[in-house]
Order: sequence, then structure tokens, then C-alpha cells
Amino acid sequence: MRLSTYFLPTLKETPNDAQIVSHRLMLRSGMIAQECAGIYHWLPLGLRVLQKVEEIVRQSMNEAGFLEVLMPTLQPAELWEESGRYDAYGKEMLRITDRHDRRLLYGPTAEEAITDIVRRFMKSYKDLPRVLYQIQWKFRDEIRPRFGVMRGREFLMKDAYSFDLDAESARETYRRVMHTYMVTFKRLGLKAIPVRADTGPIGGDLSHEFHVFASTGESDIYYDKAFDALDLKGDENDLNQLMNLYAMADTMHDPKNCPVPQEQLNHTKGIEIGHIFYSGTKYSDSMKATVMGEMGKQIPLESGCYGIGVSRLVGALIEAHHDDYGIIWPESVAPFKIGLINLKKGDSLSDETCEKIYHTLLSQGKEVLYDDRDESIGVKFSTMDLIGIPTQIIVGPRGLKDGNVEIKNRRTGEKILCTLDNLYQRI
Amino acid sequence: MRLSTYFLPTLKETPNDAQIVSHRLMLRSGMIAQECAGIYHWLPLGLRVLQKVEEIVRQSMNEAGFLEVLMPTLQPAELWEESGRYDAYGKEMLRITDRHDRRLLYGPTAEEAITDIVRRFMKSYKDLPRVLYQIQWKFRDEIRPRFGVMRGREFLMKDAYSFDLDAESARETYRRVMHTYMVTFKRLGLKAIPVRADTGPIGGDLSHEFHVFASTGESDIYYDKAFDALDLKGDENDLNQLMNLYAMADTMHDPKNCPVPQEQLNHTKGIEIGHIFYSGTKYSDSMKATVMGEMGKQIPLESGCYGIGVSRLVGALIEAHHDDYGIIWPESVAPFKIGLINLKKGDSLSDETCEKIYHTLLSQGKEVLYDDRDESIGVKFSTMDLIGIPTQIIVGPRGLKDGNVEIKNRRTGEKILCTLDNLYQRI
Repeated sequence: MRLSTYFLPTLKETPNDAQIVSHRLMLRSGMIAQECAGIYHWLPLGLRVLQKVEEIVRQSMNEAGFLEVLMPTLQPAELWEESGRYDAYGKEMLRITDRHDRRLLYGPTAEEAITDIVRRFMKSYKDLPRVLYQIQWKFRDEIRPRFGVMRGREFLMKDAYSFDLDAESARETYRRVMHTYMVTFKRLGLKAIPVRADTGPIGGDLSHEFHVFASTGESDIYYDKAFDALDLKGDENDLNQLMNLYAMADTMHDPKNCPVPQEQLNHTKGIEIGHIFYSGTKYSDSMKATVMGEMGKQIPLESGCYGIGVSRLVGALIEAHHDDYGIIWPESVAPFKIGLINLKKGDSLSDETCEKIYHTLLSQGKEVLYDDRDESIGVKFSTMDLIGIPTQIIVGPRGLKDGNVEIKNRRTGEKILCTLDNLYQRI
Repeated sequence: MRLSTYFLPTLKETPNDAQIVSHRLMLRSGMIAQECAGIYHWLPLGLRVLQKVEEIVRQSMNEAGFLEVLMPTLQPAELWEESGRYDAYGKEMLRITDRHDRRLLYGPTAEEAITDIVRRFMKSYKDLPRVLYQIQWKFRDEIRPRFGVMRGREFLMKDAYSFDLDAESARETYRRVMHTYMVTFKRLGLKAIPVRADTGPIGGDLSHEFHVFASTGESDIYYDKAFDALDLKGDENDLNQLMNLYAMADTMHDPKNCPVPQEQLNHTKGIEIGHIFYSGTKYSDSMKATVMGEMGKQIPLESGCYGIGVSRLVGALIEAHHDDYGIIWPESVAPFKIGLINLKKGDSLSDETCEKIYHTLLSQGKEVLYDDRDESIGVKFSTMDLIGIPTQIIVGPRGLKDGNVEIKNRRTGEKILCTLDNLYQRI
């Protein structure tokens, strides 16, 4: 992509109303623009990151054998009356009336909608177990939206729902989802931890939140140091450790009665990016979702529900990966892997060399952002650092005299000289 | 994918309320399920097709140099008051009030939203021209939704918006979009034609609809036979022909005054799947979207808007590609390219052979649906035909005695015997 024909409205000034670093950096780097309170446009650079995050989440779900569906953003009120949550959900639910005075709502979550699908189409024990998921926009009418995409009103969520024949199988599914989540966060370049949580209005008796380690996080987490050694090969042992190791938010952590000795305990700041629940038969009871069992009896479905805040993850990634100059994207979610900087646009050797590098990298399938603008060197350097491109190739007349270009590592700041011949091997 | 662990709720009965073939086949093949009037769930098989269509549309837009953004589904009423369309749009607009009594609406289209972005962030003639697009869910509160996803209320649309400095450049962009659309439809496996259209409430003085050729279409199109010979290499000549060849819907076609002689005229039934408008300065005037020109004067932007009905395309594809047995997917959008049928589940040679074929094809990156269910041969054949998988591999004990399997072409019905050794070459 050539920056001269791209749409990257970076801001020089830090916006006044942005209180946290991810919000400031997303606005400054032209990733998002506010439409109205808690509702954001995703501009080209931001959307590329959102799509990469979404695709990593999707691939991880698919590899685990979960099946993707897509439910509408709007849902009929009747479904929520069946489960008893229509009145209970309160003002966070955006309620809508259509031209025929039918009551709709913008889905804040989809337990009712998926349970309705399952009770209509899954009739036999042979149809189970299944985990269905979607990646879809949700709306929660937060009374005070803030922190950009971290607590917006319209947000992208991956929500999965499991259906099993009995509690034991449902708990096994819950463990499998937990493991899939840990794999997902690792692929995203995030260090995350499952923390015991209240089940709240979703119901059920087992629940974990997932928190990303970030020094700017809102929550305080105390956890067993053994977590730091986990590398998640995906075996039974990993799962058992994930379920059993101690990890608590400060609201639930009691130093006096903690089963883990002080010296075995670590502390971190965290950002919640996922929440899973074993909800049992809460929805299948109220909505009469049953299948015919092997012995000819109707069996209510055992279910769980599992969320990841996909748009929120973009903010969390920045909270976990930035410095004073801007964002530092992990490779897996970088909007472009390589930034190409032409220090002297108009200098024919610089222009030709950049063109050649640009086309060679594109032909290798690399994602390159080429800064071919007629701007100062300072602006070009600070733009590339601000938007966090992991690897930068810097091309100018002085280096080219000796056949050299520079390669800069955004994370370490390290620059190395490199001949043009060696460039493609080094990258 | 193994059918035994998939979620494919096919229906034996044709649903009563489905009046057109694509709606019937989408319900029968378990692609979609109705949530409420005009609002549909996309089940796993349907979603795979929708995602493939979406990706072809996205790739075509990207190759043309158009830049993807994502605007929220909800928009503030104030923007539409600026353009004067808030009251004008009528009851098809779904109007919403949030907890703070702010007026929102579910976007039926996004001219106002994109114009607001552009006026905020594009300040100079150097920032133009640009074409921005999104693929996002829209809502139009149709008084009588029908025909499944063909005239639903919540639907997926690709909407693009162009911004140019002057009318000439804007018209050139319009031509470029038209060409991109023709390439897109060809890739999707559709024969489509641009037809002169009224500009209607969008405004402006130049507009084309795109219609897919389908014998079940709602519209009657009369067009110059020369269209059938176009193969769109993308040169100037193609573009000129596209713009200038005669094509009219019957409402605008006047046989007496048609400039094309009767013998040079063809007639087809068509389904509208896209609509493009050159809207001039309609929105930039009312919303004051200007940039600083080269001579230091503020210039109102010249714009166009360009829609493709992405979810509607799935229905249109089926209208264009089906027979009495079900859907016949073009390769490019088939949910799975290959269907593998095990005629005798439980027969050890059949099971082993199928497993081997299944894993070999997966390792080659092929998308395979393996019918490993314990069902009758008749059910397996009719399921695979119904859901329209282009190539079927049929494996059973009789053929295997001689080392053979059958390959069936869904479109032609042709079956050929093939040795196991030759199978992978033949596919």
C-alpha cells in the first residue's frame, strides 16, 4: 500500500477526551474515529488490525471443531421474555419498535437466539455435542461509554454456545473452550490468564474471566507463579493446571485465606478480554430445549456460553504493546508487517530503489506500507513508529551510495545496515 | 468436515411460505433459518457461502485500489437531518432512541456517515481522489419482507463511496467502479448486465442497476446482443462498450423508439444485485464537505455511491444455478468443493478408503464435506445434490472390489469410474 494514496488521518495532537493510552493511540494513528458516544468508525488501518484479530479468533475456533453461524444483530423481544431476561436486562438493552409496532432489540448477547435455533433443529442425542459460535456486532447501551473501543456501545464479540447431553460432558466442553481461548490469546501475542469469576446474570455455577497482562489494566490479579511456566501444549495436564491453579481478582482474593503461599504468588494488572460460563440448563429449562435421548426420553440440554471481546482486543493489544512513540504491533496482528520509508522522494536512485523493493516484497506476498509521501524525514519516522509497523526499511541517498539500506526493529529500536542484496534474506 | 459432527438441518418438506426457488432451497438445505419477519440466521453451510461471496467482493474492491473501512450499524439522526433525508426516508428507516433519549437509526445506507468522515479528515486536494467502501449489515424496514434473503430487512451490503475534485474525474471513477463490478460478478459465476436506471432518492444524474441473468428473475431486460460477446479484459474499449451499449428494464424500454434494431436485441429475466449512482455534490453541498484546492479555494467534493447486495447475491446465485434436485454452486462460491460419500458406513474397506481420501484431500488444502453418517444411500445422494457440492466422490464396496470409486459432476450429472490411484489427478 502506498501511503500517498491511502487514507491514514493521523493526528498530531493528543485528543483531550481520551483517558487511556489505547484510546489515544487509536485516534492519533487514524485507526478509528468516533461517530457518536461509544460508537466508532474503523478506518482502513484499524480495520486491518480488527480483521486480523477476528481471523485468528475464527481459525482457533474452527480448529477446535466449533461451528460458525451468524445470527442477526436484531432479535425479537419474545425470545427474551421466554428466558425471563427481557425485563431483567435493564437499560443496557437497546429496545426498538419497528413500523408494525413489533418489539425488537439490538442483541447484547445471544443465549436466547441460539437456544431457539437449537431447539428447532436439534432433535436427537445424535445431534450432540455441538459448539456453535458467531463473530457479530453487539450493542450494550452503557450509561457512560469511555476508553474508546474498550468500553464502547457497539462492539464486535465472538460468542460461542455449547450444547451437551449431560453435566459431565458440558464441563469437559468448558475445559476445551478454556484451552482454545489460551491458544487464541497466545497467537494474538497476548499473555492472558483465566481468573475465577462470579456467574452473574448469565447464571450457572462455573465461570472464568480472561485477563490480559498489561501495566495499564483496570483490574488487579493475584496468581500462582506456576502459570508463568505453562506453555500449553494442549494435553490433559495443561488443562488440569489451567483449571486448578490459583488466580483471583483482588475483589475475590483474600491474602489471609489464600491456599498459595505468599512467595509462590505473583501480582499483575489485567484487562478483561473474555468471559466463559457453564450455565447448565438455565436456558434449556426456560425455553424448553430438549432432545430425544438414547432411551427415548426428552433430555434438557446442558449448555455453556463463552465470549471474547474482539474489538476490545484491539485496544488490549495496544495497552500491552506500546511505548512513548506509539504502538508496537505483535507480528500476528500488525496491519502491515513491513514499513518502507523513502527518505528523499524525488531523488531518482531512492525512488527507483524503493519501487523495486516495494514490488519485490509484494510479489513475495508481504504486506508492505510504502511511505512515498512528499514529507519530512521526521514526519515519516514518527508516523511509522506511531502506527507500530514491526519492521521498517529505510532508504536514502547516503546509504545507497554504498549500496546499503537500514532495517529498523520497531520493538527494540535496533537499526542494522544491510546491503540491497541481503535485504530479502534479512526480513 | 464430517457430516456426522456438522450442523446441517436439511428439511424434507418444502416450506409453505417460501415463494421463490432460492428461498425454498436455502431453507431446505439448512443454509438459513428465519428469526422473525425478514430477519435470518445464517447456519454453517449458508455462512460459508456468504463469506465466500463477501471475500470475492472484497478482493475485487481491493484490487481496484478502493479502501475498506467499517462504519457502525447505528448512526445518529443529526447526520441525516443535515442532508435532509431524515424525514424524507420514511418508514423504511428503523428509528431508535437510546437510554439518554438520543435519536439513532439503523443505517439503511451510509452516504451521510461517510461524508462526515471525509469532511473531518480530508482537507486538501492531495487527499483525493479516494474510493472508500465497507461490507456491513444494513436494515430497511420493508413493509412486506419476502423472498428470504432476497428482500430481507437486515441484509449485508457492500457500499462504496467515491470522492473526486471535479465532475470529469468523478465520472471516470464511476466507470472504474462499473468495470470492477463486472469483474466481481464474473468471478462469482454470474452473468450480469448494467442497465440504465433512475437516480431516485439518492440524487444525481447518472445511475445503473446491475441485473443477474436468471429465468426466475423479477425484472425484464432488453439489451444489445453485443453484450453477450463482451469478455471484459478491462481496457478502455470494454468500458466504453459497457457505458454505451443499450440495456433497459421493460419499464424504460420503448420498442418503437429503441435505437437498437429488433434483430440486434435480446431479452432476459433479471435480478437486481447492484446499483450505482453518480450523485455529484448533493451530499457535499448539504453537509459542507470541501477540500482546499490547488489554488487555495474550498472545493465541494464530487461523489458517487455504489452498492452490491452481498446477502442478496447468495439468493441470486441459487436463482441462476439450480435444477430439480437442488442447488448447483459455481466453484468460486461452493461451500465445499468436494463431497465424499461413503455408501456403506461400517464396511471396513469403505470406511478405511474414505478416511484415506478425506485426509489426503484435506492435506492438499481441499474443502471436503465427508458424509460419514449412518444413513441410506438415497438420503446421502439427495443431500449432496440438494446442497449443490460441485464434485462428488462416491465410495462403496462394489466399486472398491475392482479398486474403483465414482466421480460425479453435480452440474452435468455425469459419473465416471476412476481408480483410486487416478483419483487425485482427476479432481
